[in-house]
Amino acid sequence: MIVVMRMGASEEEVHNVVRHIESLGFRAHLSRGEERTIIGLIGDERGLSQHTLELLPGVERVIPVLKPFKLASRDFKPENTLVQVRNVVFGDKKVVLIAGPCAVESRTQLMETALAVKEAGASMLRGGAYKPRTSPYSFLGLGEDALRLLAEASEATGLPVVSEVMAPEAVPVVRRYVDMLQIGTRNMHNYNLLHAVGEAGMPVLLKRGLMATIEEFLMAAEYILSHSNYQVVLCERGIRTFETYTRNTLDINAVPTIKGLSHLPVIVDPSHGTGRWELVEPVSRAAVAAGADGLIIEVHPRPAEALSDGAQSLTPEQFARLVKSVRRVAESVDREV
Amino acid sequence: MIVVMRMGASEEEVHNVVRHIESLGFRAHLSRGEERTIIGLIGDERGLSQHTLELLPGVERVIPVLKPFKLASRDFKPENTLVQVRNVVFGDKKVVLIAGPCAVESRTQLMETALAVKEAGASMLRGGAYKPRTSPYSFLGLGEDALRLLAEASEATGLPVVSEVMAPEAVPVVRRYVDMLQIGTRNMHNYNLLHAVGEAGMPVLLKRGLMATIEEFLMAAEYILSHSNYQVVLCERGIRTFETYTRNTLDINAVPTIKGLSHLPVIVDPSHGTGRWELVEPVSRAAVAAGADGLIIEVHPRPAEALSDGAQSLTPEQFARLVKSVRRVAESVDREV
Amino acid sequence: MIVVMRMGASEEEVHNVVRHIESLGFRAHLSRGEERTIIGLIGDERGLSQHTLELLPGVERVIPVLKPFKLASRDFKPENTLVQVRNVVFGDKKVVLIAGPCAVESRTQLMETALAVKEAGASMLRGGAYKPRTSPYSFLGLGEDALRLLAEASEATGLPVVSEVMAPEAVPVVRRYVDMLQIGTRNMHNYNLLHAVGEAGMPVLLKRGLMATIEEFLMAAEYILSHSNYQVVLCERGIRTFETYTRNTLDINAVPTIKGLSHLPVIVDPSHGTGRWELVEPVSRAAVAAGADGLIIEVHPRPAEALSDGAQSLTPEQFARLVKSVRRVAESVDREV
Amino acid sequence: MIVVMRMGASEEEVHNVVRHIESLGFRAHLSRGEERTIIGLIGDERGLSQHTLELLPGVERVIPVLKPFKLASRDFKPENTLVQVRNVVFGDKKVVLIAGPCAVESRTQLMETALAVKEAGASMLRGGAYKPRTSPYSFLGLGEDALRLLAEASEATGLPVVSEVMAPEAVPVVRRYVDMLQIGTRNMHNYNLLHAVGEAGMPVLLKRGLMATIEEFLMAAEYILSHSNYQVVLCERGIRTFETYTRNTLDINAVPTIKGLSHLPVIVDPSHGTGRWELVEPVSRAAVAAGADGLIIEVHPRPAEALSDGAQSLTPEQFARLVKSVRRVAESVDREV
Repeated sequence: MIVVMRMGASEEEVHNVVRHIESLGFRAHLSRGEERTIIGLIGDERGLSQHTLELLPGVERVIPVLKPFKLASRDFKPENTLVQVRNVVFGDKKVVLIAGPCAVESRTQLMETALAVKEAGASMLRGGAYKPRTSPYSFLGLGEDALRLLAEASEATGLPVVSEVMAPEAVPVVRRYVDMLQIGTRNMHNYNLLHAVGEAGMPVLLKRGLMATIEEFLMAAEYILSHSNYQVVLCERGIRTFETYTRNTLDINAVPTIKGLSHLPVIVDPSHGTGRWELVEPVSRAAVAAGADGLIIEVHPRPAEALSDGAQSLTPEQFARLVKSVRRVAESVDREV
Repeated sequence: MIVVMRMGASEEEVHNVVRHIESLGFRAHLSRGEERTIIGLIGDERGLSQHTLELLPGVERVIPVLKPFKLASRDFKPENTLVQVRNVVFGDKKVVLIAGPCAVESRTQLMETALAVKEAGASMLRGGAYKPRTSPYSFLGLGEDALRLLAEASEATGLPVVSEVMAPEAVPVVRRYVDMLQIGTRNMHNYNLLHAVGEAGMPVLLKRGLMATIEEFLMAAEYILSHSNYQVVLCERGIRTFETYTRNTLDINAVPTIKGLSHLPVIVDPSHGTGRWELVEPVSRAAVAAGADGLIIEVHPRPAEALSDGAQSLTPEQFARLVKSVRRVAESVDREV
Repeated sequence: MIVVMRMGASEEEVHNVVRHIESLGFRAHLSRGEERTIIGLIGDERGLSQHTLELLPGVERVIPVLKPFKLASRDFKPENTLVQVRNVVFGDKKVVLIAGPCAVESRTQLMETALAVKEAGASMLRGGAYKPRTSPYSFLGLGEDALRLLAEASEATGLPVVSEVMAPEAVPVVRRYVDMLQIGTRNMHNYNLLHAVGEAGMPVLLKRGLMATIEEFLMAAEYILSHSNYQVVLCERGIRTFETYTRNTLDINAVPTIKGLSHLPVIVDPSHGTGRWELVEPVSRAAVAAGADGLIIEVHPRPAEALSDGAQSLTPEQFARLVKSVRRVAESVDREV
Repeated sequence: MIVVMRMGASEEEVHNVVRHIESLGFRAHLSRGEERTIIGLIGDERGLSQHTLELLPGVERVIPVLKPFKLASRDFKPENTLVQVRNVVFGDKKVVLIAGPCAVESRTQLMETALAVKEAGASMLRGGAYKPRTSPYSFLGLGEDALRLLAEASEATGLPVVSEVMAPEAVPVVRRYVDMLQIGTRNMHNYNLLHAVGEAGMPVLLKRGLMATIEEFLMAAEYILSHSNYQVVLCERGIRTFETYTRNTLDINAVPTIKGLSHLPVIVDPSHGTGRWELVEPVSRAAVAAGADGLIIEVHPRPAEALSDGAQSLTPEQFARLVKSVRRVAESVDREV
């Protein structure tokens, strides 16, 4: 960390900061500029709060030097991490397509979708059993019944399954039925849940919080990695901005940024990232062109009848067209679908 | 809801929408404008997704008419709700001051703070036992030990206690020691937790999510109210914006806005809302002048040694000065401290 | 527009709104729901303020039905507009690549860059003569000298030139030297300037304001179109969000959204949209995959010596690589470079 | 500035950065930490781009140490600046109330308003002659006719007048009629205009851009001050956020923040800061309680007939009530109205 002293800070204030830094077990390094004196703190600053140092008399501000995440960083693990979910591998040449309904509504709806997306080229199935909804009056999911149907659809199609888990105590139930646990955007900051999936020791799909910076997103991954569970796939799914025409603003910059900062695979959710079915295909192409390792896409046989998120769901036919169009883009960046 | 048809939508498309609305058990009301045909949906639209109707052929967009919250709305309960926590009442003439450390660190630290804030005029004690932290390497709180110390400090001072609960399964433990359960900003969307505190049937302090709209904030309250638990106090604590000089942007507009939309009491957290101790006093005055029913403020005997959020904590002396200055403002708006 | 009356609004209030609407020359259409009465205003509502109607007694809110832009809308001109700048056409099969330095610094720097980007495949040259800078202490551009150099470079290479104009009174000077006038992001709301370039009757490159919604962006275009100047190319260049790792958040959703709402060509500026040279190539690929009609990219022979925006500038070699990689993506979506 | 080298940067890269810093006329100061080497740049860094240094090989990032504004900073002028507009003084004990219509519509409307706001306690008159509007189809102001009416109203009431100027070439006309030039929110980044009002050498009311950070706001003031025109009053008028219930989010934190960073007076615009007349009074009270040196408020004799911004305008009666209520709050913070 770097401590910037106020203009005109006294010698005593400077020495006090130096003493404080040393009392914390770090070394201090002084540098006197024309208007400001600067004090470098030498040592591993992670876990130390910059804000506390800011309270010492004469201090103007304190600037962290190290990235706060460590295990998730390429500095500490330069090569790509591959995350394997049964026969599917994230982070390799192949762009992974995950597809399925927002919410599991019935056996018919799920089976019809699962067979169709497999036929079209998806290699993994998604489906919500527990739905976090803004309104308590909305459809909240079928719960364990949905999980059973997902396991059944997985067996029928051979596609591994990912589904959201919303609470630590639900991890044991959900893991019984699925191949990958999803942390939803509203739970990216639910640290108890991050610990729980870290301990579960199985693959995790971690969605970016709709209000989380890239750094906070990687810190959430760090929670899981700190349990020695490195099977983490990151998912950019759009952030909240002032723009209201789309449901969220998909942060395409985040894809190459995270690939640079971290060794973990990154996929994109164009369904939530746009909130409008007609934007899903062009934005899917963009994601793959930017280097995404996969896509997760909502598909429903009859979107107008969907109990949740119909407006951003594709029909199986639209999904099949998307796969063809995304495949061509993938090849143009030396990937495959 | 109002369905706006695209320019040039066919008669068949219009009739199809009407039939669809009727099949859902609503009545439809047609209105033909110069460029657009508009169809009103008559009935209680809450629980119906606007987005699904947008998928019908010929539909341009769908606009909700009713506010999505009902129990939290002044339309349904015009008079102010008073929330009682032992001898403290929120929503009445008296502006409630809650004070205490961000995190409980030791018996000495807590007792010293509790006695000082009581002496200065606080009527309730706060203190974190479980700390949601961005980094897994930060101090995460003393857990149940902290709760025990809070109960002890409460007994010694007579001040009721509020503390954050982070998971549904922790509700039984936390409620044993405290008088009011706090839902933190990162958990405003944690619906399992909202249900759990709703069922707990005791007073709840619900903090606004750092990127939640006022409407979503009231919907989170609605989750708790839907369990017939009306003992909910709302807390504006700053939202995330592009401004980086302050930690958050305190949304002062939200205070009179929520007082207008809802019957629930509203308090303000100027510590998190600014992130800088030197802004806490002026912003506290502003909150009370805008009509807040209370303030929740972080106080630490030695902020520079705090294990969390020192930069926004006041010393007991600063807090005592704040109380005096806030008292004068309260009187100028016919309230008291 | 649709007027939503408050719950319990009186008959007289409803009639008063109806009379008011009729007095403005519109027809009113009444619809009574279960909780609310709704009044439709029939006629061309553009130019009428929704906010004024909200002040009538008993009114809860007023919702516009029509898009506020008309000339820029696909509703009124379904086919794509082609914008021609000498031999370059925007909006056609070919993806237009504009490249050049952020600021013109010297004849050597400009010529070296112009020849290199032409060689690499650019079909238009960019270069700043007047630089809007946050700080009055920064380099503010060479002014008319820069324009002369741009004209010279254009003649030497055959590339048409685009450059920013910052004030209405500068339009006559700038147009003497360039082929296309650029409106910068900070001036998207400078209505005097929009009128001036509208009247200039020559091609305009309009950049999105860094905090403008898509609707406001199209309204700014409407200002220019309202002078019968349809030679407008829109440029998505990133918006301001809470994310600080990148300089701006490139709104990739905006590309297909605007192509759907408007007939005007849309290009993307990945240099400002990311602020980091290492993100420019992947995000350029994403833009073309999403359907952009062109790219505008900052290139400098020695970025570390650039007087402005060096961190987001490519070297000529990096630009040449980008062209090759973007060309493959363009072909995968049936476009060409 | 502080240059943070990448982990594992070579000795040669470090020396290259040192040489580069020295070649720019600064001194370099080396500090080797456990994971990173840090190089301090010693000298006045304003005018130097941090981003260019980031391009040198081995550099991870560059952090500015000094605030980019100088003349506007309290570091360089610790005592408050008083800005005098005829008999009105900003920055002193008295809180200045500016009131008047959003747009001047007619002599009757203006005179009626001017007399009423004077009677109620306003000490300055506002009124728009040139209106920047999102839509070219909206009312754009009466131009010089409005200015003439403002001068007339000023003479009749004795109130000094402030009005917006939208372009450098309009400064000579506007200054002929008014006592203070206003720079509107959409023009805060219009640097030509900032230079022009700087040179005009008369009092300026500078509104914060709706997308500007506090630092950028102070940099815009710096443009004016750099012409030795120190008669600048800053106006917080709300920023754009994700919240849509209010038109803008009034940044109450900005009031004490700017008072701390700068010596210039700060006023607040609760009309634009909320966009809703019913919020204007409580938020006005909050602004004064937070330390604002004045308020600028929209008043219209018949808001429902206003040609612009009626929804946020007070009637003269409402304004008179506001003055009374704000006066009490002012006294509670040792100010007066």
